[in-house]
Amino acid sequence: MKLASLRGPGRDGTLVVVRRDGLAYAPAGEAFPTLQAALDDWERAEPALRRIADEIERGGAAVTPLAVEDLAAPLPRAYEWVDGSAYIHHIVLVRKARGAEPPETLTTDPLVYQGGSGVLLGPTDDIVLRDEAWGLDFEAEVCAVLGDTPQGTRREEAHRHIRLFLLANDVTLRNLVPAELAKGFGFFCSKPATAFSPFAITPDELGDALRDGRVHLRLRSTYNGALIGDPEAGPEMHFSFFELIEHIARTRSFTAGTLLGSGTVSNRDPARGVSCLAEKRMLEILARGAATTPFMKPGDTIMIEMRNRAGESLFGRIAQRVVPG
Amino acid sequence: MKLASLRGPGRDGTLVVVRRDGLAYAPAGEAFPTLQAALDDWERAEPALRRIADEIERGGAAVTPLAVEDLAAPLPRAYEWVDGSAYIHHIVLVRKARGAEPPETLTTDPLVYQGGSGVLLGPTDDIVLRDEAWGLDFEAEVCAVLGDTPQGTRREEAHRHIRLFLLANDVTLRNLVPAELAKGFGFFCSKPATAFSPFAITPDELGDALRDGRVHLRLRSTYNGALIGDPEAGPEMHFSFFELIEHIARTRSFTAGTLLGSGTVSNRDPARGVSCLAEKRMLEILARGAATTPFMKPGDTIMIEMRNRAGESLFGRIAQRVVPG
Repeated sequence: MKLASLRGPGRDGTLVVVRRDGLAYAPAGEAFPTLQAALDDWERAEPALRRIADEIERGGAAVTPLAVEDLAAPLPRAYEWVDGSAYIHHIVLVRKARGAEPPETLTTDPLVYQGGSGVLLGPTDDIVLRDEAWGLDFEAEVCAVLGDTPQGTRREEAHRHIRLFLLANDVTLRNLVPAELAKGFGFFCSKPATAFSPFAITPDELGDALRDGRVHLRLRSTYNGALIGDPEAGPEMHFSFFELIEHIARTRSFTAGTLLGSGTVSNRDPARGVSCLAEKRMLEILARGAATTPFMKPGDTIMIEMRNRAGESLFGRIAQRVVPG
Repeated sequence: MKLASLRGPGRDGTLVVVRRDGLAYAPAGEAFPTLQAALDDWERAEPALRRIADEIERGGAAVTPLAVEDLAAPLPRAYEWVDGSAYIHHIVLVRKARGAEPPETLTTDPLVYQGGSGVLLGPTDDIVLRDEAWGLDFEAEVCAVLGDTPQGTRREEAHRHIRLFLLANDVTLRNLVPAELAKGFGFFCSKPATAFSPFAITPDELGDALRDGRVHLRLRSTYNGALIGDPEAGPEMHFSFFELIEHIARTRSFTAGTLLGSGTVSNRDPARGVSCLAEKRMLEILARGAATTPFMKPGDTIMIEMRNRAGESLFGRIAQRVVPG
């Protein structure tokens, strides 16, 4: 089942059920006007929404053609955005880029940060950049939407708390990161609003590509019209979504609709390219002594997409343009 | 105007308007069933709620006696919990306690962290502690509730975005902090659910105690029945709420209902005591070479309250007990 949120009329948008081909939708109905409302009452919402999805596929439901520009993020505002950094290769490269050491517990203790969740961008929303000196970067990620997740949830039972998957562009202002992290309290100004894919999909839509709490498909990033990376999101995700959930639930519980990110997808094989510019710049420095790729500037475009083995776009496409602020 | 949220029936509770003495309330009505709904539409909500408040004070509204145990946090879940650390004395002492240096930009660049906001505790909710070795501490703070706050908001106009004030107990697991901050991504597991005062109040309720974006009243913390601190929240708040808002809005915008904390209220004068145990322990170490006050354990109680110059409790009282997990 694919779900999406039309923009308006309220701040949380309007929940719709999307046809598997992503080209049409039917309303979710008044019982579950928003995705948050459905997540708040998932035991009742899921079967009701699945009935609509089944009718759409059978051709029995009245559908409307889908224009991606009409979509907000699946959750236009969320109660929690917890972003992991589960791809070790990304951590090592990006820390090298800013002259910092990876943490000693790199492979044993997951890195996560608490992101802002009150303002989230839709898949085609512009990225407004006030100052090019901030060093704007994209970061392509896979995310889970959690249901209510109690403190103490273990990795073995974590799958029961994953309701949906989607993609994110975790926008980062690279040049603000070093001074901010030096203060010791983590990211804040360096992480402006994150953008999300058109569709949030139930785990079954991933079929056997979902194994061991990892999504075993390639995440494609296209920067200014050229493919810049298509790394495998599965094998090098050092901490699975299940392990990330166990980690974040050690001392806290999470409310339905919590967004949990994988961190920037990254492979050691250079042929797979990158999911952010910071990695590309570090690879340039290592190879030739200097970074030649600048950070993003007004007019740049970034597209992020994931296809299944049949070539179908599972989440629709994040397609954003940078505009001056 | 004093507002509060009864527990249930939904996840956001039920908004009520509280009589100035805090002892009775009237329903806010169906137009604004929750505080979040009111904040989402504050231009319409504020005058409607003020009419109810006026009627209550005139004795013209049917009221119900208020039992604080029936209250959730004013926002039982929020879209953003941004916590500053604006009292320099607190930063210096607490960093000393964990052998860390204050940031070089201590007095010029505000420290803020992004807290979890999906699960917030009501004023009398137990603090569940799974492991005493985590080093449970309270932190008494003053908080603002923001309306929609655009990116680029300057301190001069920040007052227009403050809708309400309330108090918080920013619960911290001190012994998890050093390892977590060493990883570089800020607090996460070390900051479990924060608790909030019974009432959120409009700025006018503070009268002339609200000056220059600071609340010039004492914040009283009572630990296991004994007053442990009553520092002045005004003069030593190095960065005012206005400056904190300018800082957080540098690269981001904020949605209505964002919670913004002052950080632990702290005075240089030792006669004013402390608003957290970490400071008390550090003062013991400086005076006698060793900390003698342990962190919180099951059975401990903490009460946090702020009175105006007439002795009236403005926000009601946070009154929590630690229970084993």
